Amino acid sequence: MEVTRKNFKESLNTIYTAIEEADFLAIDGEFSGISDGPSVSALTNGLDTPEERYHKLKKHSMDFLLFQFGLCTFKYEQSESKYVMKSFNFYIFPKPFSRSSPDIKFVCQSSSIDFLASQGFDFNKVFCNGIPYLNQEEEGQLREQLEDKRFQSNGAQSFISPSSCKGPVSVPEEHKDFINEVLDKVEDLLNNSDKSFKLEPCTGFQRKLIYQTLNWKYPKGLHVETLENEKKERYILISKVDDEERKRREQEKQEKEQEELNDAVGFSRVIHAISQSAKLVIGHNMLLDVMHTIHQFYCPLPEDLNDFKEVTMCVFPRLLDTKLMASTQPFKELISNTSLAELERQLKEAPFKPPKVESADGFPRYDTASEQLHEAGYDAYITGLCFISMANYLGTFLTPPRDHISARSKLIEPFFNKLFLMRIIDIPYLNISGPDLQPKRDNVLYVTFPKEWKTSDLYQLFSAFGNIQVFWIDDTSAFVSLSQTDQVQIAVNTSRYAESYRIQTYAEYMESRLEEKQNCRRFTECGWLKSPYSTSAVVSGYGFNRTLTGKRSFSPIQEEQIPEETEGVIGGTWSHASVTQDIRNKSKKMKTDATGGSRTVEGAAVQVPGYPVGSTSEDSWLTSQTPGEKRSMSPIQEEQYSDEGDGYASTWHQDRSAQGKKGCKHKKRKIEGPESSSSSALFDVPQVW
Amino acid sequence: MEVTRKNFKESLNTIYTAIEEADFLAIDGEFSGISDGPSVSALTNGLDTPEERYHKLKKHSMDFLLFQFGLCTFKYEQSESKYVMKSFNFYIFPKPFSRSSPDIKFVCQSSSIDFLASQGFDFNKVFCNGIPYLNQEEEGQLREQLEDKRFQSNGAQSFISPSSCKGPVSVPEEHKDFINEVLDKVEDLLNNSDKSFKLEPCTGFQRKLIYQTLNWKYPKGLHVETLENEKKERYILISKVDDEERKRREQEKQEKEQEELNDAVGFSRVIHAISQSAKLVIGHNMLLDVMHTIHQFYCPLPEDLNDFKEVTMCVFPRLLDTKLMASTQPFKELISNTSLAELERQLKEAPFKPPKVESADGFPRYDTASEQLHEAGYDAYITGLCFISMANYLGTFLTPPRDHISARSKLIEPFFNKLFLMRIIDIPYLNISGPDLQPKRDNVLYVTFPKEWKTSDLYQLFSAFGNIQVFWIDDTSAFVSLSQTDQVQIAVNTSRYAESYRIQTYAEYMESRLEEKQNCRRFTECGWLKSPYSTSAVVSGYGFNRTLTGKRSFSPIQEEQIPEETEGVIGGTWSHASVTQDIRNKSKKMKTDATGGSRTVEGAAVQVPGYPVGSTSEDSWLTSQTPGEKRSMSPIQEEQYSDEGDGYASTWHQDRSAQGKKGCKHKKRKIEGPESSSSSALFDVPQVW
Repeated sequence: MEVTRKNFKESLNTIYTAIEEADFLAIDGEFSGISDGPSVSALTNGLDTPEERYHKLKKHSMDFLLFQFGLCTFKYEQSESKYVMKSFNFYIFPKPFSRSSPDIKFVCQSSSIDFLASQGFDFNKVFCNGIPYLNQEEEGQLREQLEDKRFQSNGAQSFISPSSCKGPVSVPEEHKDFINEVLDKVEDLLNNSDKSFKLEPCTGFQRKLIYQTLNWKYPKGLHVETLENEKKERYILISKVDDEERKRREQEKQEKEQEELNDAVGFSRVIHAISQSAKLVIGHNMLLDVMHTIHQFYCPLPEDLNDFKEVTMCVFPRLLDTKLMASTQPFKELISNTSLAELERQLKEAPFKPPKVESADGFPRYDTASEQLHEAGYDAYITGLCFISMANYLGTFLTPPRDHISARSKLIEPFFNKLFLMRIIDIPYLNISGPDLQPKRDNVLYVTFPKEWKTSDLYQLFSAFGNIQVFWIDDTSAFVSLSQTDQVQIAVNTSRYAESYRIQTYAEYMESRLEEKQNCRRFTECGWLKSPYSTSAVVSGYGFNRTLTGKRSFSPIQEEQIPEETEGVIGGTWSHASVTQDIRNKSKKMKTDATGGSRTVEGAAVQVPGYPVGSTSEDSWLTSQTPGEKRSMSPIQEEQYSDEGDGYASTWHQDRSAQGKKGCKHKKRKIEGPESSSSSALFDVPQVW
Repeated sequence: MEVTRKNFKESLNTIYTAIEEADFLAIDGEFSGISDGPSVSALTNGLDTPEERYHKLKKHSMDFLLFQFGLCTFKYEQSESKYVMKSFNFYIFPKPFSRSSPDIKFVCQSSSIDFLASQGFDFNKVFCNGIPYLNQEEEGQLREQLEDKRFQSNGAQSFISPSSCKGPVSVPEEHKDFINEVLDKVEDLLNNSDKSFKLEPCTGFQRKLIYQTLNWKYPKGLHVETLENEKKERYILISKVDDEERKRREQEKQEKEQEELNDAVGFSRVIHAISQSAKLVIGHNMLLDVMHTIHQFYCPLPEDLNDFKEVTMCVFPRLLDTKLMASTQPFKELISNTSLAELERQLKEAPFKPPKVESADGFPRYDTASEQLHEAGYDAYITGLCFISMANYLGTFLTPPRDHISARSKLIEPFFNKLFLMRIIDIPYLNISGPDLQPKRDNVLYVTFPKEWKTSDLYQLFSAFGNIQVFWIDDTSAFVSLSQTDQVQIAVNTSRYAESYRIQTYAEYMESRLEEKQNCRRFTECGWLKSPYSTSAVVSGYGFNRTLTGKRSFSPIQEEQIPEETEGVIGGTWSHASVTQDIRNKSKKMKTDATGGSRTVEGAAVQVPGYPVGSTSEDSWLTSQTPGEKRSMSPIQEEQYSDEGDGYASTWHQDRSAQGKKGCKHKKRKIEGPESSSSSALFDVPQVW
């Protein structure tokens, strides 16, 4: 179902119902661009830390507009053992709703726009009929503004601010005559039989003076309102009214204003509904979608990654990323290509089963045969299909096997709140509800060199060390990972006397970064200040200069868009194989981190659903639920999630209801429990790989 | 005529012809936004200096995209004494033409986008079928890149770079086997009867190695080319060829590449043609159009205003701004509203005559009755109409009067190269071909105060000084102009002991600014760094915070869009009258500037065409032509502009042809002559006002 400004209001209830009745929700967003600075290769460095990646995306992706939002709700019909699906495709645009509303600026990236255009994206629908929205700060300010207006109006006493009653309003000299004229006219009105009279159009400042003066002089008996004439000039109408009449008018006015406010909040109301439902929200490679959704409809993203994780848990208590799920055991070796379209295709074939899903009555039927990829609603739909296929596949490992695995099954909990991290070779996901994996990178070197250097120069430099991987950081630095750790010291030593280049171990590099960080408080700022990237630079041709050098001359484009060779050079065609090679090495090096939550591979192996080593019965999953969470459930939520008793969701449900609507109080919360243990399980690498 | 990527190439000749045969050209641009920072009120401060205004527009308007360009050519048919008009409406979008092309980011401003949407603007046409473009730097780099590719190919000797012949190519260790395999295959090919063979797809780096190696080992007898398979993977095809064949293929390849280059230069070719024609180019309130055109299709705008003036004179040797013309004698008091639509309406009525203009065969007929305002092609068209009406009106002052005044008539020269400056109360125009007016501002005060202050606080502060004007600079500072100069010192003195606020004279302020400037080299940078404005700020809600304070809560919008009240508070509804009042004062204060070219009002009065004080014959205008320019004419240009012998244009024509295609060598040039004398004339204020 297509939702624009034209049919948004009348569709709201349909949307709310769909969310409320759903077992899970799938979402997808389309943006006006991906990176306003570095190319994707630099934005997604294979050796980023989660913090670095977050800061880069925050800094270089958030000025783009999320202008199409796909929501697909899936409800399981036990009786017919099939899912009923309702899909919504929202067009979003921050249309200024009044002269005092925010005038949002957003960036467009020609490669992304051109890509969407090639997919038949309808930009006119976005810009002409897009649904407006406000984040929570803006909404709050608008409410305050509304209050102020009520103070000014000489309406119901309750709305008169104390100050405006204290005494005479101070009227600037040059406006005194004007105001006195108005007062005379009011006196006449009160003494003659007229009901009301108009004033000539005047400035906002003069109108304010009139409101304040009359407010103070005639707290009752008068109704003052601002109207617009056909020339769009604003003028004031003053009328005699009895208390009854005045209260009624005030009432009407306030209801109208309230409705205008709701219209302004617009699409944000849908996101609030999704958030308050606390339902499982599914996306494919969804980190950017989540970041944009929070940034655009809740609040500017926090500086610190952990704060971001907490905000995210407030807004989306349960997330699941199908790209991460597909690249994890037991799906990893069954699925060769995890791009959405490919994944959907593979999950229709054995050993997987195509899921039974039907569109609800009155909702459009999507045909997966004739792909409409990159329409947000459709992408959300097939993301849902992928999840159902994979979830059901997990059921085959149960004894007895099950055909249908619910969105609340413990079997999928290990995948919760782990968002796929693109092209980080040894950290597959961002752990939203727990600490991140901390691979040792003791075979990695940090190399700085003259900006003339190309990849080939680095290959030459390290030609003695066999197979290496190069990860560009910027013009003059890159990470180089060696296949053998013991070579690291040799490389560092040999570089001692080099003049043109410099080699540090990864550890040394991270240390110096830490100091840097402490010197100038925020990494993002200084980290990139030094880099040659900046919107203006790109526009003014300097960035172009770089793109033409052919060193890394690729337009940042969405995962699905990146042509093979680009993929190649970004991840490294020459390193594509060795990436997996590398993960193999790294995973062996993964250590237990006392402070962090990651465990050794072995320790967690048994907790991987359907893990080949030995299938496991549903019961054993109870262990993955901490007593603390169990206790925190309220009876109501018990009911709501009774079928498989999901303590986790209900905990959150309760937290949120306790927090009220503005559910983003960054409430501190222990982020441990099932995930921390299953997290490393997710990263488990079986010998048979 | 609508021109998109689809019909651009086939339309080029039509466009070139139209430009060549035209008497003058009218242009107009539509942008994706106006200001990415301050509101229009702050962007267009009533007391900006030309330098400040230029820097603000450069800093806050150039990241937007000029995505629709209107060109209207007007040719006068002596025989039928009418103009024949050809209008073109170009849709423009920087579609990346290859993976190595620039990936432009541009900003969109919701208020502007929303406004265009409300005018029925077709965004799909822009984003799906927009014509690409390159600026001169980008074009140059692309040419170099083309050369590089030819070096790599083992084509015609002339294209082999010396380096690649010097000796064996250094092949990184891990690629040696790969390259050797290729060499074996080549040997086989040369010894068997096959004509050619394919290699498996490989990385760009590997292809480069292959090219270089074969280039060096087999300078002749082989043709190597890169092709794409259906999976869009790139592979190499190696074929045996004799010299003939190889040369032919190289030839074809180079022609194809040349054509691709031309396609990439795209719309810039139209601007180059306009520039090279050196025809009179007309626009309405055209400063932003000119800045965007140069910025987008020629080069990033220079830091210094005088450099910008020189670049502009290179690109557009003769400009005329109809808004400036309409707000100047003798039109000033005949025309109440100079917004394009209003102007067009008024110029159809007495004392003006509706111009005789017809669309050329095969070109759409615009109907001024059913307005299509804000379609660039249409706006350019009625801008042309306005110019013709006003030009012809000047003819009525001649003895004997003339019905038709040509675009080359001396009568309009005084209006050349003076671009309207919006809302600067005492500097009506930016003088592109001369020094700018330098009004004394000795009745102006610079006031700083706490950010809580509103306009009313300032009125209160100065209530003793009668009628004042307030011009906000930022949150905590504003200019205040008093009606009497002698009050300035009083105000400054009284402020000596004030704590909350501070008052300086305009002179003192400018001095401190100058020092500031010298401390941090570029005004734009530091000047705005201190201000609370910034895209991110606006997006992240802080800017919003400000817009909601209601102090200056207006979306930056184009002149025509600004609703009455906005106009009011920006220029000041309460100051609208006093603006003219003020100009009256200022104009009296205008001084001769020894270094500058501005003259006293009286001195120049006689040079105003059709100036009421006394009409003048065409001959008297010869005085406004300097001998230097006369001499600099070449016979060819003489012919070209013979009918009224326009030394000025031809000078430029010659300069340019001397400079060749890339006509932007910032060639130093005395900017004096007719304008400097007429400039003050334009600013002349008759007693009868």
